[in-house]
Amino acid sequence: MSQSSVSRVPVRKFGTVRDGLLEDSLAVEEPLEIRLLYGPNGERVQKSISVTMRTPGQDEELATGFLFTEGIIEGPQVLDGSFSFTCNEQKENSITVALKEGVTPDLLKLERHFYTSSSCGVCGKSSIQAIYTVAQMAEKDGDEPLILHPDDLLSMPEKLRKEQEVFGQTGGLHASALFDMTGKLLKIREDVGRHNALDKLIGHFVINNLHPLNQHILLLSGRASFELIQKAAVAGIKIVAAVGAPSSLAVQLAEAFNITLIGFLRDKRFNVYCGWQRVIS
Amino acid sequence: MSQSSVSRVPVRKFGTVRDGLLEDSLAVEEPLEIRLLYGPNGERVQKSISVTMRTPGQDEELATGFLFTEGIIEGPQVLDGSFSFTCNEQKENSITVALKEGVTPDLLKLERHFYTSSSCGVCGKSSIQAIYTVAQMAEKDGDEPLILHPDDLLSMPEKLRKEQEVFGQTGGLHASALFDMTGKLLKIREDVGRHNALDKLIGHFVINNLHPLNQHILLLSGRASFELIQKAAVAGIKIVAAVGAPSSLAVQLAEAFNITLIGFLRDKRFNVYCGWQRVIS
Repeated sequence: MSQSSVSRVPVRKFGTVRDGLLEDSLAVEEPLEIRLLYGPNGERVQKSISVTMRTPGQDEELATGFLFTEGIIEGPQVLDGSFSFTCNEQKENSITVALKEGVTPDLLKLERHFYTSSSCGVCGKSSIQAIYTVAQMAEKDGDEPLILHPDDLLSMPEKLRKEQEVFGQTGGLHASALFDMTGKLLKIREDVGRHNALDKLIGHFVINNLHPLNQHILLLSGRASFELIQKAAVAGIKIVAAVGAPSSLAVQLAEAFNITLIGFLRDKRFNVYCGWQRVIS
Repeated sequence: MSQSSVSRVPVRKFGTVRDGLLEDSLAVEEPLEIRLLYGPNGERVQKSISVTMRTPGQDEELATGFLFTEGIIEGPQVLDGSFSFTCNEQKENSITVALKEGVTPDLLKLERHFYTSSSCGVCGKSSIQAIYTVAQMAEKDGDEPLILHPDDLLSMPEKLRKEQEVFGQTGGLHASALFDMTGKLLKIREDVGRHNALDKLIGHFVINNLHPLNQHILLLSGRASFELIQKAAVAGIKIVAAVGAPSSLAVQLAEAFNITLIGFLRDKRFNVYCGWQRVIS
């Protein structure tokens, strides 16, 4: 993790041994505009897709992961491999992702943002149905059943903590990490926004053409919300474990996608909310 | 807090005294569509403004707080006082806020979403400048200087914890609470989304025409992000304390609005990141 993700600021501390004016580390939060460049040669157009508040670093992964998990691009095959940054005040806060000639991004997905507005408002059920149209990966379930051993699961939070370089300094970052089925940590990403941390993680594997991630375990440092399970489903992830609590709609979505959802994975215990056939004790 | 904010689900627990299949409480997460009804009589139009994933309950406050802190409405004087719900599967997941005849909402604010995209991308500085155009309340600073006593501050997290009814059951909710300057808890709101908890809290005071909130202390149960400080600034709040860490941009925004920002308020200690002239030890 680069040092641009940490900011040193003056702070006045009360109640500690060293009261008074000191220096403290903060997690950096800066806006990132994600832009798309697409269309035939000679008629290339640029479009601003989104602005997200993120911790600088791995912006190519963040942009790719966002476009992929929101269903706007199908995979790395549509990328022409170039990312360009616009520099502002020596900060890189705008990234343009170029698509191959002839590839048309599905910008309607962005407007729907997964929540189809029916004549009778929205509900969790319609949100879940809308995700089926995006999560093609989720159907490519392997024949081989996934088996999870509690000891492997229980060892994961400590591995995450050791890798959370920035968290140790600032206490202000969410983390997403991908493990293999033996509990080995493959990759970790951190961000002030938990959806960004997951987009960066998934983006890393999409850029390197290593998805779908259906032989892996996703570990979330905080709570499991609908939005995070949605992104996991699009990436084909079948096992999600969270250090914190899941929401009701996160459990419903996990059930609908046959995802094993584990919560409160800490202090040598965990809860299985659905998909417990994969957990062998 | 109504029971609709808690969902009972089956859960399989590992590592506790009572292993096996039990029942657990989850924080309910459901989408809410916020719609506006406005225009002259006979030509009233409805427009969908936003869909947010929230915990059901106090939806009028959530909708009003969202419209107010995003700068789309100026205050309760533009509301005609009626809120209508659309019912779907016995859930109320769409709320329509009616404005008085002749009142035009500032829908451009929504599109800009506070981040003005300059010719050179976006940056934290431009995000802060954009908020000046919305946060009119922030300028109505009282003549009387605000004075904070550390003992009052230190007593607040325990008061918050005692009031967090739902958190005790589910471990899954963010809370925002408003205190007076003596450390007395005035109101608390909870939600799966921390921005929703703050919108509900501010919406409560806006509906009751009790804003600006410039003689109060806002306590956040988690981290302090740019987005939360932005909403506090629009409501005229001058003192924000968070149980968790602030981000770098949260500190910059608080400095720009002369907001006292306190972080890590827990275990009988706290850090003051800016505005420490108001803290008397």
